[in-house]
Amino acid sequence: MKIKLTLAFDGSAYHGWRSQPSGRGVQDQVEAALARVFPGGPKLESSSRTDAGVHARGLVAHFSLSSAGPRLTPRALALALNSTLPADIRVRSAVRVPERFHARFDAVEKEYRYFIWNAPAMDPLRRHTAWHVPRPLDIARMREAARHFAGRHDFTAFTSNRGGTLGDPYRTLTRCEIRREGSLVTIRLAASGFLYKLCRALAGTLVHVGEKKIAPDEIPRLLATRDRRATGPNAPAHGLVLWRVVY
Amino acid sequence: MKIKLTLAFDGSAYHGWRSQPSGRGVQDQVEAALARVFPGGPKLESSSRTDAGVHARGLVAHFSLSSAGPRLTPRALALALNSTLPADIRVRSAVRVPERFHARFDAVEKEYRYFIWNAPAMDPLRRHTAWHVPRPLDIARMREAARHFAGRHDFTAFTSNRGGTLGDPYRTLTRCEIRREGSLVTIRLAASGFLYKLCRALAGTLVHVGEKKIAPDEIPRLLATRDRRATGPNAPAHGLVLWRVVY
Repeated sequence: MKIKLTLAFDGSAYHGWRSQPSGRGVQDQVEAALARVFPGGPKLESSSRTDAGVHARGLVAHFSLSSAGPRLTPRALALALNSTLPADIRVRSAVRVPERFHARFDAVEKEYRYFIWNAPAMDPLRRHTAWHVPRPLDIARMREAARHFAGRHDFTAFTSNRGGTLGDPYRTLTRCEIRREGSLVTIRLAASGFLYKLCRALAGTLVHVGEKKIAPDEIPRLLATRDRRATGPNAPAHGLVLWRVVY
Repeated sequence: MKIKLTLAFDGSAYHGWRSQPSGRGVQDQVEAALARVFPGGPKLESSSRTDAGVHARGLVAHFSLSSAGPRLTPRALALALNSTLPADIRVRSAVRVPERFHARFDAVEKEYRYFIWNAPAMDPLRRHTAWHVPRPLDIARMREAARHFAGRHDFTAFTSNRGGTLGDPYRTLTRCEIRREGSLVTIRLAASGFLYKLCRALAGTLVHVGEKKIAPDEIPRLLATRDRRATGPNAPAHGLVLWRVVY
């Protein structure tokens, strides 16, 4: 029997999703909760890893159970896990899926949202979930730059190489949109998959465009450099939320 | 010289706005920041008091300065105060106002917003700023009840008496609206003034209506009882935000 969990978490206190020797991965907390419900402690396979401090509203993970486990409805399972998880991690839903389902390999689209608070003073209620950018952002310029990012590109210049094991540097951004509601600026990014730290590099560069440090029509040249040092900084982790994964 | 501050704060760590012997009033923190900028330490008069744990996005307070103080533009003053305030309190703006201005007596309307997360599992990113109500709320019923609250009423049944010093129990709600966006339900309440804990009593009773524990057309009868015990509980403090004060 295979179960698919949709998880939300406040990443502030964790070293990312992935299990850590320190036990401070979100995965460690969810697997510990599973072990309290199912003897043997099933292990999770997830749609995504997230960096330390990044949040999630819809990360997906699956696990397998032998038929010998306790008989719980998926709904009761979600309640049981939430009753033992820390308050900064929640199972939004648990559903039974076919044996062939895989949280990572079957994902067809992932959406991230990057939140920016663009006002002279930070909103204290958003200080853990948005990046404070005090200078006024030129949203029209950011939208122009975003159009250059949309589509299929070699994103080498916008990823952080992990020991040379980069693999295929091409990704297809199916959505790169900027919205403003009052002081809150949201960058929506969707793709079938992302490179390491790609969302934060795109957000950091888009903010540089909004601050007029980079011109929108420089983006094609920056992509062509294939050089991380040519582009803007990574935006901080706490503004990023893994929004949803589509199957 | 009189200065008007517009303040935002995360009330989680404080015993409300008002100065406390313990120093854990938000006012204590802002006055301590003022004392670091202005010798003598000006005292604040505020638009509102807030309960322990209640948040603010637009509380207004004023203070007076002798002309002998340091020459700072209001904008520089806001930056100076924010550089010394804890991260959960921010001065959103500082402006010079005429000597006759008074933050409390000149307020013509105050708006509060009460936030509810209405889904089986709480959103971890909203756990400090919304009340978790897991059972589905009937928004149409809540809107019907809200229409009974709008207008001028004796709200004795929806206030917590503080040692018998209630004063005039009539208030005029100029707005009592319910909005739903996905799992987030927002109650908007506006009036020229509110009674003690009125917002939380109204939110608690509206949730009871949404859960079908009270019928919408019982509201006029509940108002007429003038008995706090007849109505729903106070909604928890952490869902309430003092949204803005209009002059």
